[in-house]
Amino acid sequence: MFKDRIYNFNPGPATLPLPVLEEAQKEFLNFAGSGMSILEISHRAKAYDEVHQKAKADVKELMGLGDDYEVLFCQGGASQQFAMIPMNFATKEKPGNYVLSGSFATKAYQEAEILGVGEVAASSKDVNFKHIPTQDELKINPNAAYLHLCYNNTIYGTEFHYIPETNGVPLFADMSSDMLSRPIDFKKFDFIYAGVQKNLGPAGVVLVVAKKSLVEKSPKSLPTMLRYETFFKKDSLYNTPPAFCIYMVGKVAAWIKDNGGLAAMEKRNREKAKILYDAIDSSGGFYKGHADKDSRSLMNVTFRLPSEDLEKKFVAEALEEGLSGVKGHRSVGGMRASIYNAMPIEGAEKLASFMAEFKKKN
Amino acid sequence: MFKDRIYNFNPGPATLPLPVLEEAQKEFLNFAGSGMSILEISHRAKAYDEVHQKAKADVKELMGLGDDYEVLFCQGGASQQFAMIPMNFATKEKPGNYVLSGSFATKAYQEAEILGVGEVAASSKDVNFKHIPTQDELKINPNAAYLHLCYNNTIYGTEFHYIPETNGVPLFADMSSDMLSRPIDFKKFDFIYAGVQKNLGPAGVVLVVAKKSLVEKSPKSLPTMLRYETFFKKDSLYNTPPAFCIYMVGKVAAWIKDNGGLAAMEKRNREKAKILYDAIDSSGGFYKGHADKDSRSLMNVTFRLPSEDLEKKFVAEALEEGLSGVKGHRSVGGMRASIYNAMPIEGAEKLASFMAEFKKKN
Repeated sequence: MFKDRIYNFNPGPATLPLPVLEEAQKEFLNFAGSGMSILEISHRAKAYDEVHQKAKADVKELMGLGDDYEVLFCQGGASQQFAMIPMNFATKEKPGNYVLSGSFATKAYQEAEILGVGEVAASSKDVNFKHIPTQDELKINPNAAYLHLCYNNTIYGTEFHYIPETNGVPLFADMSSDMLSRPIDFKKFDFIYAGVQKNLGPAGVVLVVAKKSLVEKSPKSLPTMLRYETFFKKDSLYNTPPAFCIYMVGKVAAWIKDNGGLAAMEKRNREKAKILYDAIDSSGGFYKGHADKDSRSLMNVTFRLPSEDLEKKFVAEALEEGLSGVKGHRSVGGMRASIYNAMPIEGAEKLASFMAEFKKKN
Repeated sequence: MFKDRIYNFNPGPATLPLPVLEEAQKEFLNFAGSGMSILEISHRAKAYDEVHQKAKADVKELMGLGDDYEVLFCQGGASQQFAMIPMNFATKEKPGNYVLSGSFATKAYQEAEILGVGEVAASSKDVNFKHIPTQDELKINPNAAYLHLCYNNTIYGTEFHYIPETNGVPLFADMSSDMLSRPIDFKKFDFIYAGVQKNLGPAGVVLVVAKKSLVEKSPKSLPTMLRYETFFKKDSLYNTPPAFCIYMVGKVAAWIKDNGGLAAMEKRNREKAKILYDAIDSSGGFYKGHADKDSRSLMNVTFRLPSEDLEKKFVAEALEEGLSGVKGHRSVGGMRASIYNAMPIEGAEKLASFMAEFKKKN
């Protein structure tokens, strides 16, 4: 039982900025003088519409995108996007191309496979997804409907540090675990999506930022809720949206703006990542990073200890110190520290000190 | 600007029980001694699992259902269910049969039509959905995969007051706007679903309560997130669920239990409905109910005034009195007072007094 807030290294749902939570708590019973909770306000009300529009505008401003892009709020998580993307865009003649750089990247491909419209452009599976395939390794079908990337691989702790050249094939990216964590030339992408529960808000909404020309028309053979056109034409208000999640995403976007935007996020995120990667690299082999150095993620730091017994001990003792959620995914084993935007530098420092202390004792 | 909470007659998102909101507010920064907000807790954590399991168990207990039924938490609103149901269950040989009793009932049918697997069993469209089709009016295809009802029609203010006899055809119902509002013999249904944002919680999750035999296997040709089998086999945890919404649904279900269960809800809901229908019926024709008396909803009370000008005036003056959201849907016009479980009797009384006063003055 913790009386105070702890450092939460969970991969998602994940830590959120404390000022954002405090603000939401304060206005929880009466939002903007409406006499209602934000949970109770009609999605057709003016007070909600302001929240909706501001969240969209702030996200686009942070990404430096103009009127040729649209922000949509979908549901069903990135997992449902894995299906909606090939349903809306791929055919047997113009298949989706996929870079398999981890578990979720592979799951996205598998959904295209169910529809018979998926092709592999590259894979790092043979090395347990330790690195991000390089530009040279990509075999892009020039006829592809899109090239799909998972920009940051939460489970393996790897991240793209370059934007692939596709020679005109539209570039799609799942940025669930690094969306708005640093400035990226987002204009080079045609379709970006992110389940918000890692870096942007509570689980329950997927942010889609896409070129209008892609989402303004969808195949009529698809159900209404699986057509991007429905979300585009109705401003994500065809049916009741997950209003509270959108409200929280708006608050997080405003918090990022107030704290210096993506450049400031990157500075802080690089600092935190350096603290932890240095702790690994200076441990004389006690801690071993999973990801190749040139593919290391700024968001999820994965590493192993000399034995599984020590790993169990590490998790238990870290929790006693108020460092929660450091257990890695079973596909990699060991530890994973997720250090999204909202993780303070002090959290990374405290974990690094704990790592040094733990090594000394064991 | 309202300093205090007002009476919220919106159709959804809608008013929630104040004690539930207060409890959520209190523990918003530190849930169950975890040192984190419920928004930040991993969906794989024990603390969340307890919330998830208790919400499921309480819903089933309130409905009086046993081990042959399963509770699933889906996303995309009832609108996505409109598509998932025919995708999972209907074929051209075994079509879905639909009772068209209002807008959402018709939308459900239209999604089956997109797939070419929908049939109309009855419709009250010719009388602007003023009444619920009777048993005698239902033409059920004995070969149908299911008969689909919209049990309460939010927009028109009508509600089923009988459970159709289907002679073996599985009975499916959208109960978005009257779920858990009164005891119903739920065992007579095979598949019930409800977008929770009317009677059960904040927008962002759909409660599905279905016979296990229906959801334990789904066509492999469907995307993973559109198969009920995925939700059944993974206990709605295949991917990150909308955890906060599920947590709130759990709190609302516990509140219903603490307040006497469905029998007590029905008593209160009938009392509120009687107050408002009496106000209409005793107005000497100033207020005119839309629904036929034998089809009147206990949840949404719809009525017109002598002119549209008076209707506008009514909405504006009601709001000044702290009675919000009484404007009706454009398909019916006039007023709609939604009086879900969480609306106190005092709210209905205050609206009835206002109606009497308004009539006197105009």
